[in-house]
Amino acid sequence: MSLPHALLIRNVRPLGKAPVDLLVRDGRIAAIGAALAPPAELPTEEEDGGGALLLPGLVEGHTHLDKTLWGMDWYRNEVGSRLVDKIDNERAFRHASGHDAAGQSLALARAFLARGTTRLRTHVDIDTQAGLRHLEGVIGTRSAMQATQQIQIVAFPQSGLLLRPGTEALLEQAMAEGADLLGGLDPCAIDGDPVRSLDVLFGIAERRGCGIDIHLHEPGAMGAFSLGLIMDRVAALGMQGRVAISHGFCLGDLPPPERDPLIARMAQLGLVLITSAPASRSVPPLMACRQAGLTVLGGNDGIRDTWSPYGNPDMLERAMLIGLRYNLRRDDELDVALDCVTYAGARGCGFAAYGLAPGDRADLVLVEARSVAEAIVARPVRRRVVAGGRIVARDGALI
Amino acid sequence: MSLPHALLIRNVRPLGKAPVDLLVRDGRIAAIGAALAPPAELPTEEEDGGGALLLPGLVEGHTHLDKTLWGMDWYRNEVGSRLVDKIDNERAFRHASGHDAAGQSLALARAFLARGTTRLRTHVDIDTQAGLRHLEGVIGTRSAMQATQQIQIVAFPQSGLLLRPGTEALLEQAMAEGADLLGGLDPCAIDGDPVRSLDVLFGIAERRGCGIDIHLHEPGAMGAFSLGLIMDRVAALGMQGRVAISHGFCLGDLPPPERDPLIARMAQLGLVLITSAPASRSVPPLMACRQAGLTVLGGNDGIRDTWSPYGNPDMLERAMLIGLRYNLRRDDELDVALDCVTYAGARGCGFAAYGLAPGDRADLVLVEARSVAEAIVARPVRRRVVAGGRIVARDGALI
Repeated sequence: MSLPHALLIRNVRPLGKAPVDLLVRDGRIAAIGAALAPPAELPTEEEDGGGALLLPGLVEGHTHLDKTLWGMDWYRNEVGSRLVDKIDNERAFRHASGHDAAGQSLALARAFLARGTTRLRTHVDIDTQAGLRHLEGVIGTRSAMQATQQIQIVAFPQSGLLLRPGTEALLEQAMAEGADLLGGLDPCAIDGDPVRSLDVLFGIAERRGCGIDIHLHEPGAMGAFSLGLIMDRVAALGMQGRVAISHGFCLGDLPPPERDPLIARMAQLGLVLITSAPASRSVPPLMACRQAGLTVLGGNDGIRDTWSPYGNPDMLERAMLIGLRYNLRRDDELDVALDCVTYAGARGCGFAAYGLAPGDRADLVLVEARSVAEAIVARPVRRRVVAGGRIVARDGALI
Repeated sequence: MSLPHALLIRNVRPLGKAPVDLLVRDGRIAAIGAALAPPAELPTEEEDGGGALLLPGLVEGHTHLDKTLWGMDWYRNEVGSRLVDKIDNERAFRHASGHDAAGQSLALARAFLARGTTRLRTHVDIDTQAGLRHLEGVIGTRSAMQATQQIQIVAFPQSGLLLRPGTEALLEQAMAEGADLLGGLDPCAIDGDPVRSLDVLFGIAERRGCGIDIHLHEPGAMGAFSLGLIMDRVAALGMQGRVAISHGFCLGDLPPPERDPLIARMAQLGLVLITSAPASRSVPPLMACRQAGLTVLGGNDGIRDTWSPYGNPDMLERAMLIGLRYNLRRDDELDVALDCVTYAGARGCGFAAYGLAPGDRADLVLVEARSVAEAIVARPVRRRVVAGGRIVARDGALI
């Protein structure tokens, strides 16, 4: 670590607005304004922003660091189309290959950082075959990255919570060993017993005092049914503001008269909605959710894994895909796409001290773009990434 | 132009297969095989392919070179959401700004070439306000690019064929001045008189002896109705194999019992289908269309224009968006996404001498990728682009 010092970034345009200087001290934004003077008492590194667009550090709300094959040999995908095909294939592949979740998650976390992501929520598979091996790997990555990237870990029962006896105990143990949140998965479609599945899940959360982030792929009426059961438990257990729904495809299937009361209840209970905005699936109505007061944030889902060859640790690309999925073309609409991978992402995940105001953690991204909209559609190489007050990447490469 | 010479590219993997050498003479592929010897009688440039993946030149099947604002000041999009809002806004913007269709189309065509696109079909607006000004600009670009990039021009009545008297005569004149195909647009939703609109359109095509490429955005039953009227005319006029449907959203709306007979008739009449695979719209069923024998190809649609800030003159990115839209995850499915921007593109547009076999025009793309699927999801910088037998771009930049 270097000695305490200040960083003065000159001539950047916060979210495309007029140029300012920005002073960073002790890892925080100390001041933002015109023609700032370096502090007299501290050695100060000056950086010319060159009129770049300034964004707060990007936020990945839903990925699977432990699954990625990033940087490995090309994986030839010949997997069947059903969800269970993908689940079973992956578990077998990782068992056979002795998949290195520690090394892989670190490689992908670093790739995210080089592209400006300074806060990240990852699900990590917990199952009776791998036990807590993947979790331990990703906890190592969280420690390795802690000075520059905040990582939240969700203990995720990818192979189901009820199907394999012993999973509940493993999830409890995962929480004890340092997972930040408890994950869930399709209580009807995968577990086949929604009431018992959710009772077990919320039981763990109650005992451990942790928040929940549930993968809900279930479509239409089935998904709406599960969502109702989830919300009953949020209300009964006083878990308002502590539960996230990932995917929530059902909200894209239902007609507005059925959908809107669900969304209103989600907003009332402080649920947040996390979407990868897949082009090939129904998706929750972004604007209607936001208008109802729901926080909606974006994530890649898996990146280059046995499930899918797609994904990119670049949250500006994810913002573009969100924009394309929701047909956001106007500049003011693209501000919403950016919000999904910045402010709404931080708020929805509960990342504190986030933003571009004095006192916020100095997580910053500088890109060559004339507007937020251009940053999203052009996804330029990150000229600089600042994390925790230090420049960590230049021109797309970590220092 | 340089003197006649040969080009010997060593160590490339055609579509990811085993490494070969490739000999180019007189702008054509002369031989492909292991350890080729340079011809004794000609000076031969040797190029080390370094084991790169070799693709045939990429094909853009549907874009609007004349509309683009590529490289211009950022255009702040505040346009309304209806199709007519976008049409009227654009016509007014271009009239007020004196939009330079010649310079803009050339800039975008060159950007396409740098990213490996050697064949391209562009629509060009013909309307009573701009007259043939955009066409003349894009004809200039077609001439300027002819040694390296084949450009097909579609004379396109963006503001409707019937709505503004004089448009029919302008389209006839456009064909006389050198447009390659005749364009059409939503005969119900825009022109409001589908029978008369299509009779006028096919009348021009009959008189000029040209093929047709029709923008058909109309949804559901309305689109199916228009498609039926189009096919009646294809059959009556003997225009089998000479008509393309761009977009064809209606085929994504209809249930299979209504949709499949339409697709079968399209295949029987040799229609081709061109899609940008938009994430926010219904799209024709790619696999069902291919299984029915229909040629389906891909295109960007507009790129950075007053309609939309999106689009990228990179057909590997378009292949990725096609893959995402149709949920193509397996390597064999991603071969289909590549086909849409290579072989099917060339076949559907009628670009001759296309491919990687001896005798084909030497339009080649070298990328660092282990497989076709990786080339699509990673979209690496094009290491080399060869067009008409000459290396025209290195590492993403035109020479």
